[in-house]
Amino acid sequence: MSQAHTIDLNADLGETTGGNPVSDDAAMLGIISSANVACGFHAGDPHAIATTVAEAASRNVVIGAHVGYNDAPGFGRRFIDYSPAELADEVLYQIGALDALAQAHGTRVEYVKPHGALYNTIVHHEQQAKAVIDGIAAFSRNLPVMLLPGSVAGTYAEKFGLRVINEAFADRAYNPDGTLVSRREPGAVIDDPRAVAERVLRMASDGTVEARDGSTVALDAQSVCVHGDSPGAVALASAVAKALRSNGVEIASFL
Amino acid sequence: MSQAHTIDLNADLGETTGGNPVSDDAAMLGIISSANVACGFHAGDPHAIATTVAEAASRNVVIGAHVGYNDAPGFGRRFIDYSPAELADEVLYQIGALDALAQAHGTRVEYVKPHGALYNTIVHHEQQAKAVIDGIAAFSRNLPVMLLPGSVAGTYAEKFGLRVINEAFADRAYNPDGTLVSRREPGAVIDDPRAVAERVLRMASDGTVEARDGSTVALDAQSVCVHGDSPGAVALASAVAKALRSNGVEIASFL
Amino acid sequence: MSQAHTIDLNADLGETTGGNPVSDDAAMLGIISSANVACGFHAGDPHAIATTVAEAASRNVVIGAHVGYNDAPGFGRRFIDYSPAELADEVLYQIGALDALAQAHGTRVEYVKPHGALYNTIVHHEQQAKAVIDGIAAFSRNLPVMLLPGSVAGTYAEKFGLRVINEAFADRAYNPDGTLVSRREPGAVIDDPRAVAERVLRMASDGTVEARDGSTVALDAQSVCVHGDSPGAVALASAVAKALRSNGVEIASFL
Amino acid sequence: MSQAHTIDLNADLGETTGGNPVSDDAAMLGIISSANVACGFHAGDPHAIATTVAEAASRNVVIGAHVGYNDAPGFGRRFIDYSPAELADEVLYQIGALDALAQAHGTRVEYVKPHGALYNTIVHHEQQAKAVIDGIAAFSRNLPVMLLPGSVAGTYAEKFGLRVINEAFADRAYNPDGTLVSRREPGAVIDDPRAVAERVLRMASDGTVEARDGSTVALDAQSVCVHGDSPGAVALASAVAKALRSNGVEIASFL
Repeated sequence: MSQAHTIDLNADLGETTGGNPVSDDAAMLGIISSANVACGFHAGDPHAIATTVAEAASRNVVIGAHVGYNDAPGFGRRFIDYSPAELADEVLYQIGALDALAQAHGTRVEYVKPHGALYNTIVHHEQQAKAVIDGIAAFSRNLPVMLLPGSVAGTYAEKFGLRVINEAFADRAYNPDGTLVSRREPGAVIDDPRAVAERVLRMASDGTVEARDGSTVALDAQSVCVHGDSPGAVALASAVAKALRSNGVEIASFL
Repeated sequence: MSQAHTIDLNADLGETTGGNPVSDDAAMLGIISSANVACGFHAGDPHAIATTVAEAASRNVVIGAHVGYNDAPGFGRRFIDYSPAELADEVLYQIGALDALAQAHGTRVEYVKPHGALYNTIVHHEQQAKAVIDGIAAFSRNLPVMLLPGSVAGTYAEKFGLRVINEAFADRAYNPDGTLVSRREPGAVIDDPRAVAERVLRMASDGTVEARDGSTVALDAQSVCVHGDSPGAVALASAVAKALRSNGVEIASFL
Repeated sequence: MSQAHTIDLNADLGETTGGNPVSDDAAMLGIISSANVACGFHAGDPHAIATTVAEAASRNVVIGAHVGYNDAPGFGRRFIDYSPAELADEVLYQIGALDALAQAHGTRVEYVKPHGALYNTIVHHEQQAKAVIDGIAAFSRNLPVMLLPGSVAGTYAEKFGLRVINEAFADRAYNPDGTLVSRREPGAVIDDPRAVAERVLRMASDGTVEARDGSTVALDAQSVCVHGDSPGAVALASAVAKALRSNGVEIASFL
Repeated sequence: MSQAHTIDLNADLGETTGGNPVSDDAAMLGIISSANVACGFHAGDPHAIATTVAEAASRNVVIGAHVGYNDAPGFGRRFIDYSPAELADEVLYQIGALDALAQAHGTRVEYVKPHGALYNTIVHHEQQAKAVIDGIAAFSRNLPVMLLPGSVAGTYAEKFGLRVINEAFADRAYNPDGTLVSRREPGAVIDDPRAVAERVLRMASDGTVEARDGSTVALDAQSVCVHGDSPGAVALASAVAKALRSNGVEIASFL
């Protein structure tokens, strides 16, 4: 008997820069329910972003602002020591830019997910965590923010009255304490589509995942991230989606 | 007897990049009625832009989106051969980003002025002119667009139902046909504050300017641009403002 | 009876930006004899460039500086209206940067190939053509420059005493006058590996290509470009290399 | 009785970006003996850099590569968490680019000074300190590196056989332990030209500076930095130069 009949699947899209695609956005948009769309700072040109937004709108996939550090050469994967005021205004700028593109295609930005190094930094960095939430709240306090469970940013978000969406990762190994196994360790990423599909099914139905020591970890995840940027990404996401549907779990936004 | 009792003075602001100011925004905002605020593409970082926006809001100066080519190294002063779809989405992106910053400070983007090479290109370039208007209209058909009189972009704007604001330049020499004397020619820029003030007063009161051959040119300008980025900019703008006020012409937005 | 026993194969590499590869550089470097390596302006981060340079050095593939417009968002594919002095210094800057990376790996920049819109512009644009040659000559008059046959840049290069390498394209259709069929026209790009291999073999052995009207066009090409940035690029380049070798044509640099 | 009859004065130049100057390079080059020239990453466009290089060459001012983080929006003033390999290759890239411009004007890069956050980071950050020295050594082990005395980078530089140039700051207050008073504290920057001139004279003649508690701090500085980027920069540097010369201290490079 499952706890949940629906689960949200999200993926990072809209990262085409200089005409070079990072993921097969059209294919992924046929599978997922929430698209974290790049906003031009860590990746994405306005027209490429708009193309992904249009496709998402036509498929009723919910659009989130995937805000990142202003570091296209580093793809937003390097920590940058911003002042809080700079960071808050960059977050606000990015949401506004993406929302304008979204509105032109009849939709809106409906949540925010920080990207890469920013996502990881605000798990623990008080000033940047607060700055990100300040930037989001300056746009709208009605925007949920998607975060790693237990982050400092989540605490600030709740304090400001923003809804927090806990995120789990389909293909990442977990430590017994619920943190992710570092990518530098062997076995951090799970490649086998069947194994990944089973894990997501369990996340959706039981709200748990098996840690790498075999113990059971409770995850209170309202969204599961599937990657879009590897060669087998579409096949893996399809396998996950098929497993969910054949077990009666609907893929639908957390909204 | 004057035709107009008010005239709009505009200046290009918000162009601080990497912490290095291009103009004294706070001083200029005490003089002008409309601020063309950079949107981060030809110049301006989000926090520097936000600082200018906040100052403009506190002084009730109207904010326009100063959209430019994505060319910070060239300060938006070099023509770039964009595809129309790319350009339209870049215009829309910039307006959305600036408007988010503006709304956070209790105001809005209330008009659009293209910058630099883009401003000059859409005087005659059909595809880019249409793309710019497409990008603005995608944000809102209620946004006036500030242009050089007689531009192709103006024709498109009116076709799409957008209000066009004709712009004159306080310190630029005019040819008898109403076009600007090229900066490459001697005497293209007028430095003497008194002469500039007199010209603006005449633009505001008679709607005309004396061309460099001494003939009178009719300008139907609803806004006059004063430059903010030269050492004597604040003094010159102050002289203009003083001359206008002492002759009973109020400085006020065209809105 | 063949005119040539050797032919140079070149490809555009080193374009990885933000960690996202555009081509399989290691595989391509096992096939080609000359690598046009991006210099960080249209694409390529220093470390990604250095990785490609190190691989090229270890395989004795000759390194060319693939200089482009400073337009990463447009991948150097949009014309930019530079002043000649700006462009010359940008070309020089790029060559110097790449050469430093090359020297650290025991090799050098041994030729220059302009990229994308710059490559196409200097076929006809007098000022930019001269600026590019000025920039190269400022680095060294011993650097050959790879160009489309018949370009204005080639005329300047020869005037300055620079060697010109005429380039042909393996997979592009030709007009009867020796120009390339525009990519906007159907049939502009030839996909069939066997057909491409036959064309390159003929370019190498007869110095000709069949134009799309069936006529024979004389190409005086010292290098043939194979693309590295499409999904089938490695397979196509391999097919070309195999056809050349099995017909007694060696793949070797033009140096 | 003076220890030194000569002292090197250095300043940060070549930072013009988008046509907007940060300092009066021509005036400063008439005063100083060493120019730390931006390399295009934290600031500086190739043509603006080349203009400063040409002016430096014509005045026999020694040119140093002012290498920085790839962060023009932050002017290189924000720490970025690079991988060592990325950072080393960026340093090498920048030196090579600037050296090509220098050679075109008959001179060379003759030392390296890290900029801004990078300069401060490698005082203590082991990995980045080593990466910067790796990048410099990959270009040439004959390039001196200008650093804050006592830095981790200095230890690595000496280990690799690179000469270290200790730098003092003309207008900064010192703590009794020889570190700089943080800019966040009052009195961190000394504005009075006469006071600054006296301090530099003492640095040059006695090799000491008075700390803010009145104690005497021994500085073993071979170069003194004067700022070029404030409104009074040229006047202050002139006052320093005049004081030095009238006391028999010659301004000359450390080379």
